[in-house]
Amino acid sequence: ASAAGSKSTIGLIPADGIGREVIPAARDVLEAVAPNKFNFVHLDAGFEHFQKTGVALPDETVERLKGECAGALFGAVSSPSHKVAGYSSPIVALRKKMDLYANVRPVASPVGATGTPIDMLIIRENTECLYIKSERLETLPDGTKIAWADRKITETASKRIGRMAFRMALQRGAIREARRARGETVAWEGKPRVTVVHKSNVLSVSDGLFRESVLSVRNGEDKAFKDDVDLEEQLVDSMVYRMFREPHKFDVAVAPNLYGDIISDGAAALVGSLGVVASANVGDSFVLGEPVHGSAPDIAGRGIANPVAAIRSAALLLEHMGLDAEATRIHSAVDKVLSEQAAILTPDLGGKGTTRGVTDAVIKAL
Amino acid sequence: ASAAGSKSTIGLIPADGIGREVIPAARDVLEAVAPNKFNFVHLDAGFEHFQKTGVALPDETVERLKGECAGALFGAVSSPSHKVAGYSSPIVALRKKMDLYANVRPVASPVGATGTPIDMLIIRENTECLYIKSERLETLPDGTKIAWADRKITETASKRIGRMAFRMALQRGAIREARRARGETVAWEGKPRVTVVHKSNVLSVSDGLFRESVLSVRNGEDKAFKDDVDLEEQLVDSMVYRMFREPHKFDVAVAPNLYGDIISDGAAALVGSLGVVASANVGDSFVLGEPVHGSAPDIAGRGIANPVAAIRSAALLLEHMGLDAEATRIHSAVDKVLSEQAAILTPDLGGKGTTRGVTDAVIKAL
Ligand SMILES: CC(C)[C@H](C(=O)O)[C@@H](O)C(=O)O
Ligand SMILES: CC(C)[C@H](C(=O)O)[C@@H](O)C(=O)O
Repeated sequence: ASAAGSKSTIGLIPADGIGREVIPAARDVLEAVAPNKFNFVHLDAGFEHFQKTGVALPDETVERLKGECAGALFGAVSSPSHKVAGYSSPIVALRKKMDLYANVRPVASPVGATGTPIDMLIIRENTECLYIKSERLETLPDGTKIAWADRKITETASKRIGRMAFRMALQRGAIREARRARGETVAWEGKPRVTVVHKSNVLSVSDGLFRESVLSVRNGEDKAFKDDVDLEEQLVDSMVYRMFREPHKFDVAVAPNLYGDIISDGAAALVGSLGVVASANVGDSFVLGEPVHGSAPDIAGRGIANPVAAIRSAALLLEHMGLDAEATRIHSAVDKVLSEQAAILTPDLGGKGTTRGVTDAVIKAL
Repeated sequence: ASAAGSKSTIGLIPADGIGREVIPAARDVLEAVAPNKFNFVHLDAGFEHFQKTGVALPDETVERLKGECAGALFGAVSSPSHKVAGYSSPIVALRKKMDLYANVRPVASPVGATGTPIDMLIIRENTECLYIKSERLETLPDGTKIAWADRKITETASKRIGRMAFRMALQRGAIREARRARGETVAWEGKPRVTVVHKSNVLSVSDGLFRESVLSVRNGEDKAFKDDVDLEEQLVDSMVYRMFREPHKFDVAVAPNLYGDIISDGAAALVGSLGVVASANVGDSFVLGEPVHGSAPDIAGRGIANPVAAIRSAALLLEHMGLDAEATRIHSAVDKVLSEQAAILTPDLGGKGTTRGVTDAVIKAL
């Protein structure tokens, strides 16, 4: 969608709650790291938008993302705890409509943190599993209700996400090699490793297909997938257990949609705060950056939301747009602020700082 | 099944791996706490049994449990990672066949542990959700495979489990009151609390029904459920996050089957080891004690499995059989061994001890 040399257009979808605070912060960082390189277009979506207009994800938003934008950033969406007729999560819909089939979530300990360093990449399948939201409510003869939900797992989507996991594992391995060659300390010692997360001891057909598909990618396609990547399997329940007992033993984890959702929140707890964990919703031709945190109604509007997850999500977006140097500058600046300026950090990290203060510090450190 | 005054029969189903080491340990403790009170019958089930006979859960086991036993203990079952034709998890089948609709999992910090004490009770629905294992494999026109799994949530089962959660919350509240009255320190300050775990922001129909059913129990049946119990909701992903960030903020958590499986392994990581977490599979007229850990093929046969989870599961069984004094004696003995005899603990707790050593110490401390 963006001609070479001209400005790239980036869609900004702040959506609800603190999304409206952290997305502007991320935009300011993007503008600072590459002045005049981006056009920003503001696009609507979210529960608040639904309350005003009856539509959670306007067609216009999807059309403009597809027609005009080189990539986008999504803020966060509020979840009504009660059922609201006609409302359905716009982020789940966006992932599906744009075929953003992988949700890529790097979870790493802050630079200089004490304890065993964690450096995981969680790759979550983003289009199927229970997230297809095919549900039915019936009434039984005795008058009580019964609900059904369909869980869908396809060979094609499972292979596609498996392939992404092995590729990313190799890429991470190469980056570690380069670091080692430069004399830097790198925590992970051995070969890159992919951990396949499933529950095929119970769901032998559906998780069985996920498992087999990921394994078949390793055995079939690219010789390096097999020769240069270790493979490990983990049932989702013990995955959560092990992540907390020995998180440093994971490199890349790949999981069906719901398990990926759960384990990435778990991993976020290990690195201090959901407020620092970024993600990229990745398709073959589009990337949507998205902080892993929610809309945080409890702190929305107070200017104290941690912008780090959104800022790092912007960096992930740049990486996927081929702007690696700019992405690295953002990550380094964030690392610097996190490790050297404890006083200005937001409350989720134990500080007394503000969204604006952290954002300005990152921009200064670029 | 057991006439008053006569011996009660307890079924023992060691099943696979370390199940064969920890169930005998639990039996010895039961015999020691109430000499000559129990008959023990050994019953078959498990993957190893399947490999020998082609049957994972013999009909005879179910019939004798129903016909002869006042309760039972299950060890652990091995999960083949590949699909094995005709094999299906015997513990999942047992829960369903005996209608053991609640899996009750207390997770508490060891006595004397440093840090914020955790004292949670996880109540997992045990008969439906994706665990109904209704799955289908199809081939698409392009030759690739697609798998479907049905997730079933009923109003009846959700209300039943909700009711159990509120009852248990009140019971725990009463026990804390009594302790406080005796001048003991009790970590939990306020009213009993039930946290309902779901993902109704995505699964608005099925998790919506679970949520509504649990809430309706609170609003309808027993006035104390509403007046004396606080209610909180938590999406399963943030539940895992919060459990690790502020585990002391949970009292009773109630969840559909799969979420309950995942959060209880997560909670186990918080209290040091899966090797200490017990559970009871509870029905209206039968209880099956079961350690939360698996069959641990890596350490099976070496005599170093932690028997604490199985021993505590035996205590849970006694509680449900109305033998509270005996149950309390077991728990106190275990607490004592865990807090005073670090040297004899098993490797999962950082010790160099054995199954036998821990079991003998518990018996001595009774
Ligand atoms: C808001 C919700 C629909 C979403 C999800 O479950 O995918 C969120 O938890 C996430 O992880 O991005
Ligand atoms: C062995 C397996 C089928 C079982 C389950 O998923 O219920 C186990 O993880 C448990 O928690 O008891």
